[in-house]
Amino acid sequence: MQGAMRVIGLAFLLCVVWKAEGQMQVKRPRMLLSASDVQHMRESMGKYAPFDQAIDNAKKMLDQAINRPIDVPVPKDAGGYTHEKHKQNYKEMQASGVLFQITGDERYAVFVRDMLLTYAALYPTFGRHPKAASADSGRLFWQTLNETVWMVHVAQAYDCIYDWLKPADRAVIEGKLLRPMASFFTVEHAATIDRVHNHGTWMVAAVGMIGYVLNDKNLVDVALYGTKKDKKSGFVRQMDLLFSPDGYYTEGAYYARYAIMPFVLFAQAIENNQPELQIFEYRNQILKKALSSALQLTDVSGRYIPINDALKEMSILSPESVLATDVTFQRYGGDKGLLGIAQKQGSVSLDGAGLFVARALQGGKGPFEFPYESVEFTDGARGDEGGIGILRSGPVSDQSMLVMKYTAQGMGHGHYDRLGILFYDHGKEILQDYGSARFINVEPKYGGRYLPENDTWAKQTIAHNTVAVDGKSHYSGVYKIAQQNHADRHFFAASDPDLQVMSGKAEGVYKDVSMQRTVAMVCDNTMPNPVIIDVFRIDSKSEHQYDLPFYYMGHLVSTNVPYKACDSVRTKLGSSNGYQHLWKEAEGKAAGSSTVTWLNGGRYYSLVNAADSSTEVLFTRVGASDPNFNLRNEPAVILRRNASSTVFATVLESHGSFDPVEEISFGASGNVKEVKVLASTTEATVIEINGTGSLRWIFAVVNGEASTEASHSIAVGGKTFSWKGNYWLWKK
Amino acid sequence: MQGAMRVIGLAFLLCVVWKAEGQMQVKRPRMLLSASDVQHMRESMGKYAPFDQAIDNAKKMLDQAINRPIDVPVPKDAGGYTHEKHKQNYKEMQASGVLFQITGDERYAVFVRDMLLTYAALYPTFGRHPKAASADSGRLFWQTLNETVWMVHVAQAYDCIYDWLKPADRAVIEGKLLRPMASFFTVEHAATIDRVHNHGTWMVAAVGMIGYVLNDKNLVDVALYGTKKDKKSGFVRQMDLLFSPDGYYTEGAYYARYAIMPFVLFAQAIENNQPELQIFEYRNQILKKALSSALQLTDVSGRYIPINDALKEMSILSPESVLATDVTFQRYGGDKGLLGIAQKQGSVSLDGAGLFVARALQGGKGPFEFPYESVEFTDGARGDEGGIGILRSGPVSDQSMLVMKYTAQGMGHGHYDRLGILFYDHGKEILQDYGSARFINVEPKYGGRYLPENDTWAKQTIAHNTVAVDGKSHYSGVYKIAQQNHADRHFFAASDPDLQVMSGKAEGVYKDVSMQRTVAMVCDNTMPNPVIIDVFRIDSKSEHQYDLPFYYMGHLVSTNVPYKACDSVRTKLGSSNGYQHLWKEAEGKAAGSSTVTWLNGGRYYSLVNAADSSTEVLFTRVGASDPNFNLRNEPAVILRRNASSTVFATVLESHGSFDPVEEISFGASGNVKEVKVLASTTEATVIEINGTGSLRWIFAVVNGEASTEASHSIAVGGKTFSWKGNYWLWKK
Repeated sequence: MQGAMRVIGLAFLLCVVWKAEGQMQVKRPRMLLSASDVQHMRESMGKYAPFDQAIDNAKKMLDQAINRPIDVPVPKDAGGYTHEKHKQNYKEMQASGVLFQITGDERYAVFVRDMLLTYAALYPTFGRHPKAASADSGRLFWQTLNETVWMVHVAQAYDCIYDWLKPADRAVIEGKLLRPMASFFTVEHAATIDRVHNHGTWMVAAVGMIGYVLNDKNLVDVALYGTKKDKKSGFVRQMDLLFSPDGYYTEGAYYARYAIMPFVLFAQAIENNQPELQIFEYRNQILKKALSSALQLTDVSGRYIPINDALKEMSILSPESVLATDVTFQRYGGDKGLLGIAQKQGSVSLDGAGLFVARALQGGKGPFEFPYESVEFTDGARGDEGGIGILRSGPVSDQSMLVMKYTAQGMGHGHYDRLGILFYDHGKEILQDYGSARFINVEPKYGGRYLPENDTWAKQTIAHNTVAVDGKSHYSGVYKIAQQNHADRHFFAASDPDLQVMSGKAEGVYKDVSMQRTVAMVCDNTMPNPVIIDVFRIDSKSEHQYDLPFYYMGHLVSTNVPYKACDSVRTKLGSSNGYQHLWKEAEGKAAGSSTVTWLNGGRYYSLVNAADSSTEVLFTRVGASDPNFNLRNEPAVILRRNASSTVFATVLESHGSFDPVEEISFGASGNVKEVKVLASTTEATVIEINGTGSLRWIFAVVNGEASTEASHSIAVGGKTFSWKGNYWLWKK
Repeated sequence: MQGAMRVIGLAFLLCVVWKAEGQMQVKRPRMLLSASDVQHMRESMGKYAPFDQAIDNAKKMLDQAINRPIDVPVPKDAGGYTHEKHKQNYKEMQASGVLFQITGDERYAVFVRDMLLTYAALYPTFGRHPKAASADSGRLFWQTLNETVWMVHVAQAYDCIYDWLKPADRAVIEGKLLRPMASFFTVEHAATIDRVHNHGTWMVAAVGMIGYVLNDKNLVDVALYGTKKDKKSGFVRQMDLLFSPDGYYTEGAYYARYAIMPFVLFAQAIENNQPELQIFEYRNQILKKALSSALQLTDVSGRYIPINDALKEMSILSPESVLATDVTFQRYGGDKGLLGIAQKQGSVSLDGAGLFVARALQGGKGPFEFPYESVEFTDGARGDEGGIGILRSGPVSDQSMLVMKYTAQGMGHGHYDRLGILFYDHGKEILQDYGSARFINVEPKYGGRYLPENDTWAKQTIAHNTVAVDGKSHYSGVYKIAQQNHADRHFFAASDPDLQVMSGKAEGVYKDVSMQRTVAMVCDNTMPNPVIIDVFRIDSKSEHQYDLPFYYMGHLVSTNVPYKACDSVRTKLGSSNGYQHLWKEAEGKAAGSSTVTWLNGGRYYSLVNAADSSTEVLFTRVGASDPNFNLRNEPAVILRRNASSTVFATVLESHGSFDPVEEISFGASGNVKEVKVLASTTEATVIEINGTGSLRWIFAVVNGEASTEASHSIAVGGKTFSWKGNYWLWKK
């Protein structure tokens, strides 16, 4: 997956052979479950603990559900009772269908039938949802997204009880509910079907699956190839466009986790109905790569990297992640690393894939461990729209992870954060991405939707660990422009575990300003933990204000910057572009290298910058202009410099230990004392790092064209430094 | 332990029979280890996992230590390298002595000897510590406290190698180090020996243990009975005075954890040297009660309730807690509940007691569970200086715990927080006590000592969940006065698990102001979790400003209070008594009952107050006037009312659920909608609670003399409420 641009693989011909309806004697179920899955599941009961647990959980849920009166409420809210109730209903129907198949207990079939008949009676009476925020509104839910998810579940439930149902009931359910809803999607929301976007994926999955259930070739074809069936849109086209050749999903890991679910669900249905399409092989096994890249974009605790509009708590424990893991394990020959994920998940999906994983966990020789690695994923359908790099060092129990984002915008949920970085260490966020401003489904918080502060704060450049110029966001925060542009990979080199380096470039994020950021993870036996070197080079002919924030997590311990504390009256840092949400807590001018040290999770972290008296150091906290208490009040240190061309050179060192239970603290000061920029030319940037003992490092990175072969030399104060390749680290 | 005042038990006669020195043929070791302990430990190697682990840990520590050059640095800092090094040295010596006894490997004896000889060479050259902050300074450490801890460890180490040492080395170690240090304690710090305080306990333990080691009756007698040997001070007197008859340690749980260590250590040494004193039986087994009460004052995760100057992270995992648990288990007949604690600790002490526990854990039938209960502990040596009450409900996996503090001041580490409450739920702090402002041993944070903000903020009344009057702290924040006064228990009733109530009173904390607070924990089958009722009654003839803060933990979700947000410019709430450390984030006037809802750990919490338009509601955050970033920036809601006599009536309800991984939220609004004060007279206070559905409760509490037998009736708007006893809850 490392390497330069990829050429998109030629889509192999999808040879669709549809049996004429009259000839078909459909063997059911055949959505997520096949008849042979059901047979295996019946035979396996009592044998595999995680699978038994999945059955038990479903039974418990249904035991309660069956004893409650059926409630199909008139749609009212966007995150309150009626919203949650319709979600609960589809989950219960889906599980009940599966239980009927496994146990043969008719109570489960009755439950699904009665619920569907209730929906069938009411659905025709519902108009557009009263909380509809846009044209993209459903009838049961405020947005079609939820409505398609409803349909994906109901298609499975209906499939499970189809043979058991009386034809008259089928006629009602199909005539009053399923077909009208399918029409609602294909007619009123044709644009969404043809949209290359996760909402589109859910919709084609819903339409396609209901197509298979109803044995309706037209619906299936629309789902697979777009409303015009010209393959310019639809599921297959989405598989081409929504992932890079490496499997990176353009909205980022949090949305990959969500988007992958309809891909996997629909792919399973396709495989069970049209195996000749070989959907899991499509585009060099792109679905496998999609999951793999999403999992690499988690920290070792399993939480997805919160780039773009992401909720930080979201992890591999989510139901979508469990399903995708299980299906991928089943369909792609049982990758042992995935069992490490499955083990952490502690649960399996209630289907053939889940059974497959449960069996492998029990039979295989553990412990299983997902192979977290240093890896780069390209962005864009052709892999030529930048990318995202991850450097890792150390075992899962104490791993350092550095992420740099030099992707494209990532559609509407993308942030203006080109060349932003995130750092994790020892199981903790150390330099954070704020993620999104949202309390998902929490009704009193703006109906559970993205908060207004998501736009005014979370998306803005200053909310990220990257440079904001002249107090503005990248591309002036204009989505249309941002979406047409991407950052670029410069190079990614992770083969030497002691010196891993990646570099990205961003041109045109601001007019006449070029940016390049290079970050290195260095392991050295004189340092207790990996050291991060961060060289942010900015090139411009005219003078600008450059702000580089570091959203550190933890409690500030000390700084060598002489500062004035704003601890009597507090004011905002600015009035727009996110600055209005920052309180200024203190400000100072660096005198020589500036050091800021904080404490997090029993470890100290020091950020040492090659600052000087021209560099202002601002200590800020999120939370201004926030009348509804929507934001988390978290700190940052911002380096501000007015210059034309400049370099922010920074070392991040973790050191020492604090154990409040043992009452032991040591190493509260780091080893690195000074960072200096020796030179920065069109050819290369060279910095010097000095510290305690004999610590003296020179780090150089090439600014021109990347090449592992080219030789470079640069003269600094009478000395000439020479090296071959894209970077060079010299240690005294 | 419930119940009224206790009469202190008559100290039974301690019959001391000291053998004349000439007659003694001392069998060693005999500090924490006896010769028979050593025999058992040798025989048990390889048999009991936690004990083997303790040996392994010690061996690992010593493997490193023995291979390092011995370093006895010239004392320099109060929390930096030299401080930590001297701590490390005593830990290593103590463990090395034990390992020598168990393994017979002379390398361990050599290590102790060489280290002691190095100390003996240098100790005479050290003057008072350069960072001495008071008269109470040591030579190795900035305070004698650490120095006595050093001696307690060294006494054990020396005892372990005594027989092995050559007489000439003994002469040097005793003549240059141990006896001079003992004299330094008994002569220059005689006042500390006679002080009834945890520093005093460590000192008598140090002096007494070195007395046993050196076979010096005088030192032992001074330790046991004070410098005048008149039993008016010394260890035995401390056992009389530092604990209440229930075992409550007057400085609170955090300090109990620390103070108990010298008690336990010295008691073990006394038992091994003068078993005729029956020290573990003294004062109705007060040492057992001391541990038991400290453990009851932990939350279910094992962290000590952070009242007074406490660090919140401190837990039962601390070495002192492990030692106390093991010794108590051994000496008091093997209480199974303590095995629950030992199991959570996951480690045992490296001595006979630790072996005893390891054996019990392996042989006993688990799972073991410490019996967390609703319990009251009285304060004061006679149990007549107020107390502290704990109400609990639910299993350890999901327990609600409410603590109210109506103790005495608790010496120099006490806070001005009479009638303060803390609430825990579901493993989380929900209403917090700030604890102390300190980063223990973190050198850049004020040398690791208590920060200046500990006095200006953490100790002040406004920093606690209790009422501050006229912007001042209790007793005007004057320690001398506060230390002479205490709050009072009114009643404590926890026998009905569905209605547990406790009530305390505070007279004279402010001139002419009387306070009474009653809190109830109510379980009701219409409510998902226990509900807290809080009735804070204030009586005064003149008008005052009353502030009642609730330091809620979590993210504010919603409030029905119309407020003005101070989100553009932020100012301080006041200028002194802790108010200068609060930012005002918003202010409003209540209109009817005020509700504030927040989210913590997947659960919603609502505080509903019987407020009206005379009540100002202030939203604040800690962190103003904090130029060194020493404070945590945490929120509170403060109810402010100007009145003479008044009642703050509050209900705290936990409700609903938020699961960001499953993306499910429900019940973001609570059931309780209204709280009203119906009446408050000298006889009783009556409040009404109304909510959704048919929720209507009337709660009454007696204000006059407590009696479970007395009948009461009070007329409210034409209705008369009658009941018997101290409180009454009527549900519609």
